Amino acid sequence: VALPQNTAEVARIVRLANQENIPLVPRGAGTGLTGGAVAAHGGIVLSMERMNQILELDQANRLAVVQPGLINGDLNRQAAKYGLFYPPDPASVDFSTLGGNIAENAGGMRAVKYGVTKNFVMGLEVVLATGQIIHTGSKCVKDVVGFSLSELFVGSEGSLGIITQATLRLLPLPPKQGTLMALFPSMQKAAQILPAMARAHITPSILEFMDHQCLKALDAKEGTSLASRAAALLLIEVDGQKEKVGADLSLLADLCRQNEALKTDQAKNAPDRERLWSKRRSLHASLHLIKSRWEEEDISVPVAQLPEMLKSLDQVASEHNLVMANFGHFGDGNIHISFAGKDHDLNQSQTLAIRREIYQAAVNLEGRIAAEHGIGLDKTDEISWNLDHSTIEFMTRLKEFLDPVQILNPGKVLPGRERK
Amino acid sequence: VALPQNTAEVARIVRLANQENIPLVPRGAGTGLTGGAVAAHGGIVLSMERMNQILELDQANRLAVVQPGLINGDLNRQAAKYGLFYPPDPASVDFSTLGGNIAENAGGMRAVKYGVTKNFVMGLEVVLATGQIIHTGSKCVKDVVGFSLSELFVGSEGSLGIITQATLRLLPLPPKQGTLMALFPSMQKAAQILPAMARAHITPSILEFMDHQCLKALDAKEGTSLASRAAALLLIEVDGQKEKVGADLSLLADLCRQNEALKTDQAKNAPDRERLWSKRRSLHASLHLIKSRWEEEDISVPVAQLPEMLKSLDQVASEHNLVMANFGHFGDGNIHISFAGKDHDLNQSQTLAIRREIYQAAVNLEGRIAAEHGIGLDKTDEISWNLDHSTIEFMTRLKEFLDPVQILNPGKVLPGRERK
Repeated sequence: VALPQNTAEVARIVRLANQENIPLVPRGAGTGLTGGAVAAHGGIVLSMERMNQILELDQANRLAVVQPGLINGDLNRQAAKYGLFYPPDPASVDFSTLGGNIAENAGGMRAVKYGVTKNFVMGLEVVLATGQIIHTGSKCVKDVVGFSLSELFVGSEGSLGIITQATLRLLPLPPKQGTLMALFPSMQKAAQILPAMARAHITPSILEFMDHQCLKALDAKEGTSLASRAAALLLIEVDGQKEKVGADLSLLADLCRQNEALKTDQAKNAPDRERLWSKRRSLHASLHLIKSRWEEEDISVPVAQLPEMLKSLDQVASEHNLVMANFGHFGDGNIHISFAGKDHDLNQSQTLAIRREIYQAAVNLEGRIAAEHGIGLDKTDEISWNLDHSTIEFMTRLKEFLDPVQILNPGKVLPGRERK
Repeated sequence: VALPQNTAEVARIVRLANQENIPLVPRGAGTGLTGGAVAAHGGIVLSMERMNQILELDQANRLAVVQPGLINGDLNRQAAKYGLFYPPDPASVDFSTLGGNIAENAGGMRAVKYGVTKNFVMGLEVVLATGQIIHTGSKCVKDVVGFSLSELFVGSEGSLGIITQATLRLLPLPPKQGTLMALFPSMQKAAQILPAMARAHITPSILEFMDHQCLKALDAKEGTSLASRAAALLLIEVDGQKEKVGADLSLLADLCRQNEALKTDQAKNAPDRERLWSKRRSLHASLHLIKSRWEEEDISVPVAQLPEMLKSLDQVASEHNLVMANFGHFGDGNIHISFAGKDHDLNQSQTLAIRREIYQAAVNLEGRIAAEHGIGLDKTDEISWNLDHSTIEFMTRLKEFLDPVQILNPGKVLPGRERK
């Protein structure tokens, strides 16, 4: 394990690894869900935890220059003092590092309004596999000088270069948030809220859904009876100017009722908001009251295909006699799937078969086998389900161009190749 | 000149050019301002004008799949029928093609709220220099399958690959626009509106400025006396729900008056809006009443540095005895500069010297020598003012990797290299 303190040290370590042909696995906080930070081929784990400083927080230009080991939440706590925030909010926001977020192109709940990590990276300092240091992007909103290289490294899972510094775009912190919970008799009814919101020109900052199984889990934890009354729950948040938030929230409640919501619950104050949010936050714990071990998946489909995808998932669950809980981000087509055998444990080959049925269902709807949790070690064999042969061949050559000795996070993202 | 009708034809032409070492210059409508579509080294001009179809307009998923020769405005006219729009709006919107817009990473007036072309490209089909066809991105908002390659080709000015198809993100067409014009005694006073708007959580969809010389030009054309009363003009537009637009517009007018605006003029209806916009639209024609020939520049600085940049420009104008008119996009730090000798014609070396002083002033403020008009043929020698040696070296190697024979738009973007 190497714990560099600055870019020059990173470059020296990378150069050594390249000369000696030693695998190099960059690591933020290790919170990734597909094994991106796992040293599967041994070698050096390059932990960025000591490079955790905010180098610049520029209120007037609304940007921050940060080191990769900085925790996402720490940036937001500092930015808040200047009335700013950094929108990408993966569930790991209080533990995961910005370098890791960038390497994984992390999403989160607010992506429906604000976008994913890629949309907030203005520039990067990157150490290439040879130890060469390059700088991408700038502090300017409009910039067409040279090629746009930042995005090549965003989401590359440490396999194309080591991110040693990032310039991140910040936004003015909305003065007000409003939260609404709505229960629906079916997911199809809940889904009708999407085009209705578009027609009303409301863009929620958060639009989370939970399916029937999630409601059962919440009932098990909280002694409620949601699942007997409803089949789907939406948790909607709007943010902005005070008056606008109030108006949007009322309009949203109306839209929910017009689409046969069984109940709407509007948070009137902070504790009230906390009460609604606790349902989402306790979901993982609640699910573990039902099954001690769940397999988890992360896929996405074009937004309007989400209800269709949920139907396909029901079918997979019923065919394999599974307990399956689906929740996630309604507004951006991203579903997080938890599954387990109903009265049996799943072995590895059963799990793989089920995962692949899920991928196939997503692909059938022009969806993706990985939305915001990376490819990592887990899905390299299946990227050909989304990418044609020519595109994978090009990505592989691009990887070889950037990392000729194949030291950078080997075995991640692309299908396995023997190291030289 | 080759006029391919489909991707297979493009691939065949590219393969031939690569085999025979013939320069290949992709061309949309040829409206670019830095010579990107000029066949400076001879060879084949690859005009995409026959590939101008909308292949898909998906209302539910708010996206369009288009061919590169489609005119930007034609997409918007079709999208409007479905209540959608494509935000990037370069001034050439009625003539320039989406392929050209993508190759140049076109910006426009609405970038202050919506972002530039890069932010709306979900996926591309690209013919590489070898004739190999790859597909980047997808129709999903969240997608981390493989490397993020779309942005590498956006803004690459046809020098890394030929774009033959694009999946573009659309947004719901705002039901209402509101327009406000305000006159200020100085650019510095006008600039104070920026932090004031941020504090009030208003994001205008357009925020254009014109300097004193622009006002003189308008006066010359329209017989008004703006320039004797004011030194700066702001043209602000907000869009969204009807009630919100009205409220925002009133608040903006208040903010302008609090910051010593001499006059505010709010458009009450469509003809009124047209009256305000005509000032901006006639600016080019108005400027030509003052001088028949202007040199034009396009730079950007971090948003808050814009007033400082305008001061530097005043200094350049006064040192070189120039007439200089500055206008552009206040909210995104992008200035369009027009200059001419006050009582003398500028020769080529004088023009170059002035351009370079402008670039230097931008660089001093962490700005960029090209914001939205590309590098093209014009600025290749100066990209080293923004990019360090190592980064240029890497871009050059990347270009060689993607285009080993150097057939793709040679002489553009990167400093000159002899072709093999």
